[in-house]
Parts: sequence; C-alpha cells; structure tokens
Amino acid sequence: MVGRPLDSARLGETLLPKRLALPIFCSDPLSSVAYATEEILLVVGLGGVVLLHLAWYAAAAIVVVLAVVVASYRQTCYAYPGGGGAYIVSAQNLGRDAALTAASALLVDYVLTVAVSVVSGVAAITSAIPELGGHDVALSVGFVSLLALMNLRGVRESGRIFAVPTYGFIFFVYLMFAFAAVRMATGATPRAESADLPLHAASAFSGPALVLLGMRAFASGCTALTGVEAISNGVPAFRRPKSRNAATTLLVVGFFSITMFAGITFLAMVYQVHVAVDTTALGLPPHTPTATALAQIGRASFGDAHTFFYLLQAFTAGVLILAANTAFNGFPMLASILAADSYLPRQLHNRGDRLVFSNGVTLLALAAIGLIVLFKAELTHLIQLYIIGVFVSFTLSQTGMVRHWRGMLAEPGLPRPVRLRHRRSQAINAVGALLTGVVLVIVLITKFTHGAWIVAIAMPLLFLAMRGVHEHYRRVAEELAVAPDARPWEPAGNHVVVLVSALHAPTLKALGYARALRPTSLHALTVAVDPRDVQGLREQWDAHDIDVPLQVLSSPYRDFTRPVIDYIVDVGARNPGGALTVVIPEYIVGHWWEHLLHNQSALRLKARLLFTPGVTVVNVPYRLSSSKALRSHRDERVTG
Amino acid sequence: MVGRPLDSARLGETLLPKRLALPIFCSDPLSSVAYATEEILLVVGLGGVVLLHLAWYAAAAIVVVLAVVVASYRQTCYAYPGGGGAYIVSAQNLGRDAALTAASALLVDYVLTVAVSVVSGVAAITSAIPELGGHDVALSVGFVSLLALMNLRGVRESGRIFAVPTYGFIFFVYLMFAFAAVRMATGATPRAESADLPLHAASAFSGPALVLLGMRAFASGCTALTGVEAISNGVPAFRRPKSRNAATTLLVVGFFSITMFAGITFLAMVYQVHVAVDTTALGLPPHTPTATALAQIGRASFGDAHTFFYLLQAFTAGVLILAANTAFNGFPMLASILAADSYLPRQLHNRGDRLVFSNGVTLLALAAIGLIVLFKAELTHLIQLYIIGVFVSFTLSQTGMVRHWRGMLAEPGLPRPVRLRHRRSQAINAVGALLTGVVLVIVLITKFTHGAWIVAIAMPLLFLAMRGVHEHYRRVAEELAVAPDARPWEPAGNHVVVLVSALHAPTLKALGYARALRPTSLHALTVAVDPRDVQGLREQWDAHDIDVPLQVLSSPYRDFTRPVIDYIVDVGARNPGGALTVVIPEYIVGHWWEHLLHNQSALRLKARLLFTPGVTVVNVPYRLSSSKALRSHRDERVTG
Repeated sequence: MVGRPLDSARLGETLLPKRLALPIFCSDPLSSVAYATEEILLVVGLGGVVLLHLAWYAAAAIVVVLAVVVASYRQTCYAYPGGGGAYIVSAQNLGRDAALTAASALLVDYVLTVAVSVVSGVAAITSAIPELGGHDVALSVGFVSLLALMNLRGVRESGRIFAVPTYGFIFFVYLMFAFAAVRMATGATPRAESADLPLHAASAFSGPALVLLGMRAFASGCTALTGVEAISNGVPAFRRPKSRNAATTLLVVGFFSITMFAGITFLAMVYQVHVAVDTTALGLPPHTPTATALAQIGRASFGDAHTFFYLLQAFTAGVLILAANTAFNGFPMLASILAADSYLPRQLHNRGDRLVFSNGVTLLALAAIGLIVLFKAELTHLIQLYIIGVFVSFTLSQTGMVRHWRGMLAEPGLPRPVRLRHRRSQAINAVGALLTGVVLVIVLITKFTHGAWIVAIAMPLLFLAMRGVHEHYRRVAEELAVAPDARPWEPAGNHVVVLVSALHAPTLKALGYARALRPTSLHALTVAVDPRDVQGLREQWDAHDIDVPLQVLSSPYRDFTRPVIDYIVDVGARNPGGALTVVIPEYIVGHWWEHLLHNQSALRLKARLLFTPGVTVVNVPYRLSSSKALRSHRDERVTG
Repeated sequence: MVGRPLDSARLGETLLPKRLALPIFCSDPLSSVAYATEEILLVVGLGGVVLLHLAWYAAAAIVVVLAVVVASYRQTCYAYPGGGGAYIVSAQNLGRDAALTAASALLVDYVLTVAVSVVSGVAAITSAIPELGGHDVALSVGFVSLLALMNLRGVRESGRIFAVPTYGFIFFVYLMFAFAAVRMATGATPRAESADLPLHAASAFSGPALVLLGMRAFASGCTALTGVEAISNGVPAFRRPKSRNAATTLLVVGFFSITMFAGITFLAMVYQVHVAVDTTALGLPPHTPTATALAQIGRASFGDAHTFFYLLQAFTAGVLILAANTAFNGFPMLASILAADSYLPRQLHNRGDRLVFSNGVTLLALAAIGLIVLFKAELTHLIQLYIIGVFVSFTLSQTGMVRHWRGMLAEPGLPRPVRLRHRRSQAINAVGALLTGVVLVIVLITKFTHGAWIVAIAMPLLFLAMRGVHEHYRRVAEELAVAPDARPWEPAGNHVVVLVSALHAPTLKALGYARALRPTSLHALTVAVDPRDVQGLREQWDAHDIDVPLQVLSSPYRDFTRPVIDYIVDVGARNPGGALTVVIPEYIVGHWWEHLLHNQSALRLKARLLFTPGVTVVNVPYRLSSSKALRSHRDERVTG
C-alpha cells in the first residue's frame, strides 16, 4: 500500500528542483491568503459596517511583517545550508531551553497547520458545492488520512502531486484579478453576494477597545505568515546550490503571497464582502452556512464564467489541503531531530521502509484529527490556537540569527565585503526579531481569552515532557554504561526450574530443553489447585518414566503465582551467585483470537518474574499447526 | 475494593436461607410486574381508547402461562438438585445442539435482563423526580457498574442488600392495593393523571390486524415471566433440603407475581391509565416525558399520602435495579459451565479471589452497558429484543424435562407411588413445553420486525462461535496429547546466538548467562545499520577482552529482523536435531510510559522468532532501578 522499500543509498535521489520545492514547501504560506482576509473581516466586522475600514490598516501591517519575515529567513537559508529550523538555530545560538521552547511551539503549530488548512480547504469545497455542507468533520478527517497515506509513500511522488493545485491556485487568483480589473475599468464594479446584507455591530467599540479590535484583526490576519519557516528548514532537500535555490524560492513565494493577499483584501473591500461568525449579525438565522470571502469575490469577479469560479474553488481547496503537507514534511523531520537528541521517544528517529519518518507522520495525523473532531471543524475556533507558536519560533529563530552573525563577525581577519554582508544580514535579522517579538505580544494579548490559552498551556507541558524524556534517557544510559575493565558475568552454576501444568507434548519438549542447558540443578514444579488433577499428573509422570522429581505446591487461594515465586526465590537464596532459569512450556497459536482462548495465568506469572531479581524466564515454544500456517502466510507476504 | 480473598473451603458457608434466596433469585420475576402492565397498554393503546379492553385478555393469558411455567420449573427443582438450568437439562436430555441453543438464548437474555431492569428502574426514579429526566443513559450505566462492583465482592453480602428493596416493593404494592380497595369501597374510584388525556389510535385495527395486536400485547406482557429459570438454576445455592426449599421459594414467588401483576393491571384499567410511546397520541408534544403506569397508579391510590408514593417508587427502582442481579448470578455461572465444557474461553471458568466468576461479571456488565448506550436507554425498544431468549430456553428446558421423566419411568421396578409422581411431573412439563412453545411462536411473529430480528441473528452467531471455540480446544488438545511411551525431547547439543546492539551492562550479563548454558556453540551477532556504530562496537569488544567472536551482518534496508532470522535459520540448518537458543539482552524499566521510550525493534524480532521453528528465545533481563522501585511497591500492595 505504501510502495516498495527503498535503499538508504537512494536518499540523494530525492533532491528537489525549485519548481517542485515551491509547491512542497510553500503551499502553506501561499494557501493561507485564502482565509487570512476573511479572518480580518470577521474581527473588524464585530464593529459593524462602520469599522470595516480597519481592515485596510491591518492588511497593510501584515504586508510589512510578511516582507520583513521573508527577508529575515533568506538570511537563514544562507547561514544554515544544512537546514535552519528554529530548533537548530535556537539550539546553536541560544541554548537548550530556547531550543526546546522553539520545538514545542513548532510541534504544536504543525498540528494546527494541518487542522486549519484542511478545514479551510473543506470550506472552499462546501462554498462551491453547498450540498456537501454539514459533513465538514468527516471530509476533513478523510483528507488528513489521505495526506498521511501519501506521506507514508515518500517525498518525491508528493512533489509532483502538489505542483498542479499550487500553480493552479496562483494562476486562477491572478486570473480573477484580471477579470476584476477589466470589469472595474469598464465601469461596473461587481458587488459581493453579501454586500446587500446588513452587518450589525456586536457591540460599540471606541477608545482602547477600538485599538484592541484593530490589533486583534491584525493578529488574525497574521495567519498569512505561517509556513515561511518551512523553506529554511528544508534547505537540504533542494538541488545544489541549496542555499541559493532556497533563498530564491522564498523570494518568489514572498512576492506571490504579498500580491495575492493584498489583491484579495482590496477586492473584498471594494466588493463589500460582509461576513460574520454569528450569522444573526447579517440578518440571517443562526448557523446559516455562508460562502467564504474568497468564494464570494471569485463568484463576483468571474460573473458568468462559472467554470473559472469552480476551478478557482477546486484549486483553492487543493492547495489548502495540500498545504497541510508542509507540516507532514516538517513535523516528522523535527521530531526525528528531537528524538536523535533524545528529547522525544527513539521510535520517532527511525525512517521507515520508504525513507520517511512513518511514526512522525502517523502521530501528526492523529493529533490533527483529534483537534478537528474536538473543534467540530470550525475554522474560526481553530484559528485562535494558531499563530502563537509560529511567532514564538519566529522570534527565537531571528534572535538566534542575530547571535549567529555576532559570532561570525567575531572571527578575526574577515575580508571587508564579507564583514559588510554579515552586518547587513545581522541588521535584517534584528529587525525581524524585534518585529516578530512585537507581533507575538499582540497575538498573545488579543487572542488569549479566545482560545489561545490552550496553546499557552500545551506548549510548556510539551517542553517539560521533552525535558523529562531527555532525563530518562540520560539516567538509563548512565545505568547501562560499564567500566572499561568490566567482563561478562560469570554465574556460579545455573539452576533450572521447569513449570508443569499437565503432561503433554510442550512439557516433554520443555523438559528436554531444560536438560540440554546442562543445569547445575533441575526442578520440575506444579501447583495443586485441584487435588484430583495432581493425582493424575503424578501417575502420568511415573508412566512416562521422567527422572526429574515433581514438586507439588498447594494453593488454597487458587492463585499459583505466589507459591511459584516463593519457591523460585527460595532456590535462588540457596544458590547465591548462580543463574536462576525458569522454563515455561508454551504452545504457540497462530491467530490473535486464539490467544483469547488460552489461559492468561502464565502471562501474569511471567510479568511477575520479570521483576524478580536474578531470574531469567525461558519460554520453550511448542508450535501448533495453526501457527505454522500463519508463518508460511507471513513469509509469503514478506517475500512477495 | 472488592474485599479480601476467600479460601476455596469457605464456598459452603455462602449457602442461602429461603428468606435471602428469594430476593437474590426472584427480584427479576417480581420486579417485572413493574413494567409488564405498561408494555401491554402501550401495544393495545395503538388502537386507541376503544381497544384498551384487549389488555384484560392479554393479562389473563399471561397469568395462565405464568402459573404453568412456575409449576413446570418446580419439577425441575426436584429433578436437578445440582442446578437445572436450561443448558444442563437440554444437554442431558436433548443433546449438544439443543443445549448450545439454550445457552445462546440464556446468555443473550441475561444481558437483556440487566439492560431492561436497570433502564426500567431509572424510569421509576425519573417518574418520581422529573428533574433527573434526560440523564437516563448516565444513570443506567452508573447502576450497572455499581451492580458489577457489588457482585465482584461475592454472593452473601449481595443477599442482605437485596432483601430490603425486594420485600419493601412487595409490601408497598400490597399497601397500594389496600389504599385502592378502601377508596373504591368508599365510592370514590381514583382516576390516573393521564385519564383525561385523549388516546388517539395510530391506525385502525380490525380482523387479522386486531388479532395480531392482541397477540403482540400478550407477547410484550410476557416479560412478567422472565427470570423464573433463575431459581431452578440456583438450587445448589439453597440451604438443605435444597430442592424442596427452592421449589417452595418458586411457589411463593409465583403467588406474589400473579397477584401483583393482576392487581396492577386491574387498577390500570379502572383508573384509565393512558400511555403511548409516541406522546402525540396523547395530545402532547413529541417526546414529552410521562410517568410510568405504575407511578400513575401509585400516585392516584395513595392520594395525599405522598410519602407512601415516594417509598413505592424508591422500592420499585430498588427491586428493578437489583433484579439485574439475577443475571449477575446466572450469567457468570452459566458461562463458567460452558467454559468448563470448553464452549467458551477458559478464563470464564475461574473463580476470582472472592470466589465469584470475575470475568463473567465484567463481561456481562460491559455487554449490558453497550446495549443501554446503543438503545439510548429507551425501554420499549430494549423490550423488543427481550423474551425471545427466555421462551427458547423455557421450551427447550421443558421438552428436556419430558424426556427426563421418560427416562426415569423406563427404569424397571419403580414403586407405584413413585411412578405416579413421575407421570404427574411429566404431564406438567409436557403442558409447560407445549404452552411455552406456542408463546415462543407468537413472540417471534409479533416482535420480529420490531427489533427481535437482532436477537434472531445474535443467537445463531453465538451458537456458531461456541461450536468454533469447542472445535479449537478439541484440536489443540489432540495436538498436545502424547503417546504413552513418549519421553522428553533429547536435543543433540544447544547452539546459542547472543544478539548485540551495543556493549553495555545488559550485553555483558547476557554473554555471561549464555556461557552458563554451556552451549555446544556460541555466536555473538550484530547488525550494521550504521557502519560507524559497528566500528565503535568492535573497538569496545576488543577493549573488554570478550572471547566470543562478533559476527556483523549488513542491512541496507535498515531492517535488522530479516538478516538475523536468516543467520539463525542457517545455524539451525547446519546443526540438525540440536536446540537453537537466541539470547537477547533486555533492560527492564518500571513504568508503562518508560516502555514507550525504548525501541520496539527487539519486540518485533521476538514476535518473528516465535514463529521460527526450532528456536527458543531467552530474554536475559537487566533490571534498572526504576523497575526495582516498582517491584517493592507491588510487593507492598500484595502483602498489605
């Protein structure tokens, strides 16, 4: 299902040309223009029609921030050709705690990227096909699962799939601008379908409240900035010259993002798009499904050219759903780095058969599905949790870069042009750090009570968990380490106890195996739960001529774990320094349901013996025919 | 939480006097009078007020059937002092398939007894305290869980808890009859609160449809008969003389059931209780919560004596919820018998620490909770699934009894009075078999499309599953059996392979342990996923002066399972007839979450080796300090 295994040596083959890297790493920042404008309008619309003009200021501020962030990250692409995610940059320049803070922020935001992008993509679909409305959760979960499956197959195939919707989206947005320009030039400015709806204010805003509303609108619109980090993180996946190709791609993406965001916001204002979370503000019944702002603009711009409108919606949905893929690249890679540094469980470090980090992909998909289900696929509520993480990592990353350049500048004997270039880079990153830090504060203030507190709790928890995991691995490594003069254990003899429940083929096999261990002493042990059973067992024991004496323990409480453990501990106490082996006959069945049919007492005993010092448990397997059938079936599957 | 463990020898102590056996085994048939009348009225009410009189006929027929069934089961109590459930009687007289059919029917019905009784008990509570309405599912699930916990504690304690509500219920129903008699005698017949509501017909019934409606009302009212079986099943739990005490208890219960059911139905008719599933038939908005029929009768009878009304409701709820306990006695006992005959998984056969069948109790509770949640605690829908199983087992049990007496009569030289007694018993059981068979057909016809088809599918599935389990155990036993001259296995030597991932304390311990096995040949094996790791390992190997040569296998696909298995299979092939032991160093951590932090590769390898013929896996445990802390904590818990 996820393709044939790939050889490690083929990793190099999967390097990406710019035209494929752009859709893979940039569908996130590009696609967010599909909802950023609407999120601004939803906030300023709380003040009614009279405050809609605030959107101009918010959008302008966002364009400035976007330009600065793009410029900043271009420096990172050059400075970190091996991949300069916020985690690495923070780790190398700001220390462990800053790095883990950045990592927590990124991990949380990758999950939200998936959730927000997919939910927004589904909204684009239901705007075009209202009949699908009401199935948002199911559709979103379906798309996340699809993405996870694609990513379990590997990077290259994904690149080709992504090129079409990403370039299609860019093309149709510009085509929409062209249509709009022609219509406006010919004197007939189109109006959005919601232009004639009223837009009642939720409450009156003035003074500080007005400022706060504007800042909140700006904070919501900042979703347009998410995902810029992905390119600097993914530098090693580019073709050579890696840094330069990555920086160029970032510049192109910055241009597309800014023009598309500005254009869509402009059209939304002149077409008078009215949107509201609470549809009663539009004079509609509560919970009336309404089209997205972009869909309204598209419908009005294209007019009679219905096909173009549907294609715009299709590509919007496509780029949004695939934008989630940025996270499917970034999350597992970051988790792998963190696991390699032993901050996360080791399983996240391993690449699967198809060279992708299968466990990370699966984990991300499950977390995103959890959020979608929890928030019932409601975009505006998910958006509240978003962006904080992005700006935490932006700020840390840019601050780290300032330090990085300081280190570079401290090197003696730098030629003047290099020194100047470094200074310029440092200045750019300093502006970036300052600006993103200010935005972070604004986002925190304006969104905290609207749901961002969840992230403000989740991030520190993740931080502490990663520290805990690290501490655990450190402690274990310490315990496992051996002195240079350590030699293998030399037990004084091996005392073997065979547990017997009945005299059947597995018991005979286990007894023979125990003999082959050439033990210092050999015991056969049974527990008398029912005296009649024991009598029968003794008779069989004699009939089969077994020369190991059978010890019988009594158990009035029908529990055989306790007496067995006591007996074994006693054997151990009488033979200090010796190895103590408990042999348990076991029959192996083939199917999981067959396990349910056999008594679990042996399992419970094994679990207890695992924690009994000095004891090694040996299960001597007797394979029933159903297990053999299963084995040959498995082998076929592996070979075929 | 579930009390201290009990010694097996104390089983005899838990025998029950009649006054305690009655509430334990008979809360089911007694309590069902609380809803049987209402279920009749709900059906005949579909024909509107004009057809309410059909309830008289249905109730009369039910009284007749109830009397016959009680008489029949009294014969069983005498014939089977060791417990005469439908399964045992069918097995001994009708053969395996009949017995398994009875068993399927009983298992399904036990689950429904719990679900129906508890839901009905909750309805009694919400009738008295309307504020609790709407929390039916949560309340029902809570009560089932409570019952399960009580039953995990053991039978005796349960008996005392049950006595109060059962006798209280009987007392307050008769007190209600007394109040009603006095009021009617003084000329003022009370009217139910719903008497003035209209009762519109759902459709017109005439001819065959009318007959079918009457039969359906009768079938629904037959819930009054459920649970009669419990006493004949529980004969061994009675004090000596067991059979006689059980038969007497059954007679007393029969008297109570018939008089209470007849009385309640009589009062419902003269008070003109109007009930309907679809409350629009009563001229009320849809889904209006209404009081139960019994609650309406109680309120009207007691009038101003509000305290008596609330006590009636409290005891009704109590007896209903505890009626579910009949099933908590019967289900685990039957499951244990079936498990002993290897028709169900063996775990169901074992008594837990407190002498009760813990697994059966848990399984029953989970199944009942599942049904309650699935049917949203709606009584009338659950009732549709009920009774079929009861009448299947009634019919089989009575038919089996007829055969039983035939066998007894065939014995030569029976004294005439004994012969006459047997003939009389046979005649009673024959009438019982015939009557319950007819009722079964009526129930099937009238309820099939109303939900009974679910049971009609579930029962055969259970039947087939039990046959499958039996076949599995038979096949395994056959495979495990050994010839009388079989001797323990005598392997030609023991070849040991130690798997090495790194040179740390667990590896040194495993190497020493492998040496202590005094193997014919000893191999140390590692897999080169990363060449650098292997180089380091080799150096350490030499530095620690280990005299076992280290074999290195390469793995381009980052999978180490395959090369290891190939190597081991190869060692086995070169040493035919020898034992093959794979030693895996393992470090033991204490907490479940610590397991998540360690690589699962060894686990996957072990799973594969389990199915590799000739191989025995030995995990040599190296216990980390966290596991030791856990062990001492566990030991404290066991001792304390």
